[in-house]
Amino acid sequence: MSEKKIPYKIYLSEEEMPKQWYNMRADMKNKPAPLLNPGTLKPMTFDDLTPVFCDELVHQELDDTTAYFDIPQEILNFYKMYRPAPLVRAYCLEEKLQTPAKIYYKFEGNNTSGSHKLNSAIAQAYYAKKQGLTGVTTETGAGQWGTALSMACSYLGLDCKVYMVKVSYEQKPFRREVMRTYGASVTPSPSMQTQVGRKILAEHPGTTGSLGCAISEAVEVATSTPGYRYVLGSVLNQVLLHQSIIGLETKAALDKYGVKPDIIIGCAGGGSNLGGLISPFMGQVLRGEANYRFIAVEPASCPSFTRGKFAYDFCDTGMVCPLAKMYTLGSGFIPSANHAGGLRYHGMSSILSQLYHDGLMEAVAVEQTSVFQAAEMFARVEGILPAPESSHAIRVAIDEALKCKQTGEEKTIVFGLTGTGYFDMVAYEKFHDGKMTDYIPTDADLQVGFDGIPKFPGNEF
Amino acid sequence: MSEKKIPYKIYLSEEEMPKQWYNMRADMKNKPAPLLNPGTLKPMTFDDLTPVFCDELVHQELDDTTAYFDIPQEILNFYKMYRPAPLVRAYCLEEKLQTPAKIYYKFEGNNTSGSHKLNSAIAQAYYAKKQGLTGVTTETGAGQWGTALSMACSYLGLDCKVYMVKVSYEQKPFRREVMRTYGASVTPSPSMQTQVGRKILAEHPGTTGSLGCAISEAVEVATSTPGYRYVLGSVLNQVLLHQSIIGLETKAALDKYGVKPDIIIGCAGGGSNLGGLISPFMGQVLRGEANYRFIAVEPASCPSFTRGKFAYDFCDTGMVCPLAKMYTLGSGFIPSANHAGGLRYHGMSSILSQLYHDGLMEAVAVEQTSVFQAAEMFARVEGILPAPESSHAIRVAIDEALKCKQTGEEKTIVFGLTGTGYFDMVAYEKFHDGKMTDYIPTDADLQVGFDGIPKFPGNEF
Repeated sequence: MSEKKIPYKIYLSEEEMPKQWYNMRADMKNKPAPLLNPGTLKPMTFDDLTPVFCDELVHQELDDTTAYFDIPQEILNFYKMYRPAPLVRAYCLEEKLQTPAKIYYKFEGNNTSGSHKLNSAIAQAYYAKKQGLTGVTTETGAGQWGTALSMACSYLGLDCKVYMVKVSYEQKPFRREVMRTYGASVTPSPSMQTQVGRKILAEHPGTTGSLGCAISEAVEVATSTPGYRYVLGSVLNQVLLHQSIIGLETKAALDKYGVKPDIIIGCAGGGSNLGGLISPFMGQVLRGEANYRFIAVEPASCPSFTRGKFAYDFCDTGMVCPLAKMYTLGSGFIPSANHAGGLRYHGMSSILSQLYHDGLMEAVAVEQTSVFQAAEMFARVEGILPAPESSHAIRVAIDEALKCKQTGEEKTIVFGLTGTGYFDMVAYEKFHDGKMTDYIPTDADLQVGFDGIPKFPGNEF
Repeated sequence: MSEKKIPYKIYLSEEEMPKQWYNMRADMKNKPAPLLNPGTLKPMTFDDLTPVFCDELVHQELDDTTAYFDIPQEILNFYKMYRPAPLVRAYCLEEKLQTPAKIYYKFEGNNTSGSHKLNSAIAQAYYAKKQGLTGVTTETGAGQWGTALSMACSYLGLDCKVYMVKVSYEQKPFRREVMRTYGASVTPSPSMQTQVGRKILAEHPGTTGSLGCAISEAVEVATSTPGYRYVLGSVLNQVLLHQSIIGLETKAALDKYGVKPDIIIGCAGGGSNLGGLISPFMGQVLRGEANYRFIAVEPASCPSFTRGKFAYDFCDTGMVCPLAKMYTLGSGFIPSANHAGGLRYHGMSSILSQLYHDGLMEAVAVEQTSVFQAAEMFARVEGILPAPESSHAIRVAIDEALKCKQTGEEKTIVFGLTGTGYFDMVAYEKFHDGKMTDYIPTDADLQVGFDGIPKFPGNEF
């Protein structure tokens, strides 16, 4: 089909929206390793997990053979409120870069949560509601996930308790207010509401909290409150399953115009966006039907893929969660000086970790100031103010497009623009004022985290 | 066409996007009164206006006979970056209200400026650039217009100087940072940069500024700096012309599904959104082709239509601008305790004023707390966090839908959802904390403003 005919924005119609999620694991020869019970070191069973997660989500978590899951009609209806998300042809960015590359981005920020997180939030809230539960608990760092879950719970009439990393709670009062608008209770973590919170506050009275700590609190409240379960916005297999809607829509939009990408790029924190974006494309690769380059982009300050260990590790600081096999910096690693709160996690999705380990995906780490340079350029030419997390992908998309400029190759680059930066203006202000710094952990810094990774037979790294 | 087939969101294709703006004045029997030179009290001519506004925009301002203006290709290209805006069927709101009414809203907030202001900003910046100018100046209150203009100027490579009402500058640092991201210079007003600013500061050292004062500063800088012109985001005829894209798209989307609205509702500050939304529909009424109810919604704290005078008045506090015939509270009126900064203007578009005067449009004033109640309900069921300004329209749309519930009438209601409230969380916080108050000016309060309206023969009120 003629290049000229591709519009600035490709919107699928409601009828063209995917009706099923795709489960990459079904096509993986090397399946991601199972979650382990930290006490017995045996794989977590359905019965082990149901006190924490609602039943249907545990089924999805453990199922590595079913390729497609029907999306329930109620979730499809909710999706129609803010989806399909546009696939945008970045004509203006291409012109600015004077590159022969063709750049597309899947924009997931046009909803009030401001990110792709809503795709899984509504699914998790729906299954909790369907099971007759009263409410859910979760943690949030930068706030996108907490906002998304608040919106989903408000829509379905579920209680929602959010434990928000204390430093974010204080620095991002507006995020907190959005969650309150949707009726959620928002508690700064660590709090005095939980045993684990009280313990951490006793040991570290001045702590500003961490994602790992907030997870521990949310899990404790979920498992000790009748009618509640815990939900998580990234890392888990079920989350990547729900987020496959991103990739499925992207592929449908590209197929409609006969476009085949060469490179697919996404930012990687816990892996929810990247895993969702690449799903159907990786499925083709796994089935031997096509080839693509996949690039995970992570912050140099929190380099799980590029400098982490592939090992079983705790998902949370309080060590109440199961062990996951993943690229990890150790649950005790504390990334600092990085404004992309959503990428500040020590671990990584087990699925993506396995794919990376098997050489099916690349990873690069980028520094913060170069990320904000890319963000500002993008905002000016494409008209969207990107979230710092998303801007990691923009950085590498621009770098790849500039390589094409040098070589003259007309590659097609697709990246995930996960969200907007309206609540990140403190970071932008630092950047404008020249006060933003880069931070790259030394090997010694990393060793502190590695030392906390549990040692047991079969977990050598 | 069957009701069932209407999707949640109607998106026009790029080909279906309007290629011309519509000028309501061409179809008005009673034309809006011309701008007057405050010195001579004679109508402003092309030559009077070109020191302030760029030439093409003056032509548009003065032309009340040409019905359609071609939208230049460059502006169409920019529009394609964030338009067409969706026309949303508010199925979830209808269900929540249990109303037989059919509710639609035109959502203009899915761009980084967060509002419809971008539609005119790009047009005004384009004509300035085309004339070979170096830059433009403007004022901004709540910040939407300043952000929109910054984006447009950044795209075209024009300088942009924004005078931001001091209280907003201090209370909304994030808005300021968005403008800086787009390369604009942002100065708190009143400033020491201008004669009018220095005079106001000398007389009122502690003043937190006003929109009328910021306009005076911006105009002074534009007219005293070579290569600069002033641009304005509302009130003017040219702005309503550009904003007609809102109504034209809305009508095209409704026509596509064979839907004819009964009631069309918009919030009214200076009139940019309301005037744009109703344009093609009012055109039909003016030509005797159809009938609709049009409702302007204004804050009870700044009730230009419902309690103002229809008279010639100054557009700005410094009285450097021409006189406009409009519904006005007097340029000395200071509205307080109203968070909808975009509706805090003493005057109103001359076009809309004439239509209201001729009985072609209704107006209602609503109180702030009831507006935020509507905003929160809307956010929870429709998933979009609305701007306080836009929420005025939501309030009245809900009220009209509830009337339908009582009468059983299946009316079709269309309202303009002008923008998002991400930068208005301080107001939402006050509302959540029960600290929001309503303010209705007394007749004595209003008299202070009325006393400042100039008296001259023919300006009786």
